[in-house]
Amino acid sequence: MTEDKVKGKLIIIGGAEDKEGGCEILKKVVELSGGKDSRIVVMTTATLKPEETGSLYRKVFNRLGVEKIDILHINNREEANSSCLVEMIKQASGIFFTGGDQLRITSILGGSAVGSALHSAYLNGVVIAGTSAGASVMSDTMIVEGDSDSAPKKCTLKMAPGLGLIKEVVIDQHFAQRGRIGRLLCAVAQNPYVLGVGIDEDTAIVVNEEGSFEVIGSQSVTVVDGSTIRYSNVSESDPDQPLSLTNVTIHILPKGYCFDLKKRQPRKGKNNL
Amino acid sequence: MTEDKVKGKLIIIGGAEDKEGGCEILKKVVELSGGKDSRIVVMTTATLKPEETGSLYRKVFNRLGVEKIDILHINNREEANSSCLVEMIKQASGIFFTGGDQLRITSILGGSAVGSALHSAYLNGVVIAGTSAGASVMSDTMIVEGDSDSAPKKCTLKMAPGLGLIKEVVIDQHFAQRGRIGRLLCAVAQNPYVLGVGIDEDTAIVVNEEGSFEVIGSQSVTVVDGSTIRYSNVSESDPDQPLSLTNVTIHILPKGYCFDLKKRQPRKGKNNL
Repeated sequence: MTEDKVKGKLIIIGGAEDKEGGCEILKKVVELSGGKDSRIVVMTTATLKPEETGSLYRKVFNRLGVEKIDILHINNREEANSSCLVEMIKQASGIFFTGGDQLRITSILGGSAVGSALHSAYLNGVVIAGTSAGASVMSDTMIVEGDSDSAPKKCTLKMAPGLGLIKEVVIDQHFAQRGRIGRLLCAVAQNPYVLGVGIDEDTAIVVNEEGSFEVIGSQSVTVVDGSTIRYSNVSESDPDQPLSLTNVTIHILPKGYCFDLKKRQPRKGKNNL
Repeated sequence: MTEDKVKGKLIIIGGAEDKEGGCEILKKVVELSGGKDSRIVVMTTATLKPEETGSLYRKVFNRLGVEKIDILHINNREEANSSCLVEMIKQASGIFFTGGDQLRITSILGGSAVGSALHSAYLNGVVIAGTSAGASVMSDTMIVEGDSDSAPKKCTLKMAPGLGLIKEVVIDQHFAQRGRIGRLLCAVAQNPYVLGVGIDEDTAIVVNEEGSFEVIGSQSVTVVDGSTIRYSNVSESDPDQPLSLTNVTIHILPKGYCFDLKKRQPRKGKNNL
């Protein structure tokens, strides 16, 4: 959480969320943003196909009953400082980041007037949702690139500063579907202070004001807790050498399961698991 | 280990071992089988291309200095009971199982005279090596099929009795490369008594007489220890529902790292990690 006074919620989606069936995740975005009365801003900055992606989400949110939808194609830093666009962010009750390239989001919005309006909106109670690249940017430090389906190695992992809406966490998306456990383990090994959260496709975490999340959607969330690590060679190994790590703790949490980010404790309802 | 009196070693390879470069893993097979004086039997039962696969391994083992190489194309249970083939197994100092389909190995050799000769050979000090499907068959219960790159679910996992050369362990191969952590977690969750050992491509474990293994090769071995699991819904969940599991312990071990299978303890040299 950015600070104790956060009033907003985050919906962090592992990509490829259902847009045609029950739309469980996107319905949750609408519900938490205020239902039919919500005003949703779709941020297409991540994608190089903003028109196509924007109109796809307009259609879905429309079908889910939302009338007030603004699609913001912010494509450069000049636009990211436009006071007119800042005004649109201020009026939103929900803000949705599409997928694409996470570095586009941070390099264009980071340190801009729109970027700072996003933080204020979140602090003031607005829902911030993001899918795929739009999920990765939520954390302080984000994974930009890294080998999928491979053993954890330092050289394959590239990280960069994210939007910082969620602290002490590193998010990965398309998680099981792209075999990303190796790169998330590597990220966590570098500093076990951060908790690794790998979100599968069509799956999301809803992070509340108290710093807990609940899983929704059809697949699972993998939590990698490195605080139990007894040994790692991450600092002395060569970049292309496979990492060694012992005693990492893993939790697999599907729909309905919760996780307390401060206590690093999985829960279901009120029961610690 | 089948019993305390085992004198043989196992070399369990995650598939796609190097056959053209330094051949680290296959060299180890030769070395432990007796070097240039070894007599290696290659078992092609798993594959539907036995001639091709057999001659490939004959070339490699030849290049590594072995002169006495027998290729055994056992294709049915009648052959698996041939006393002449049993004799060849008896004369081997190393036995190598190629990749293919693990059910071919167990359905053809299981309960046959050759199958029982294999066990005796292992007890008496012969090296048994296997790659890919030939690795999976080593354990008591083996993974036959299961989704790669997906969240752990019961329905996607099929298991069957293996050759039982290594007890209390379930092996998976092509591990990181095919994103198989989900299916191995599912196997372990069903009975945390078994230790999950996921072996990457061009990587192997060398299991010694004392019940420890050392990792060799270019990638990593992932050990999944379910004895720390606090909660799992594996018995009550629907087959197609994603599993929930908390507090699984994971170790990532590259080349040079060891693991004591009895104590479930990672080591490097004499140091517990």
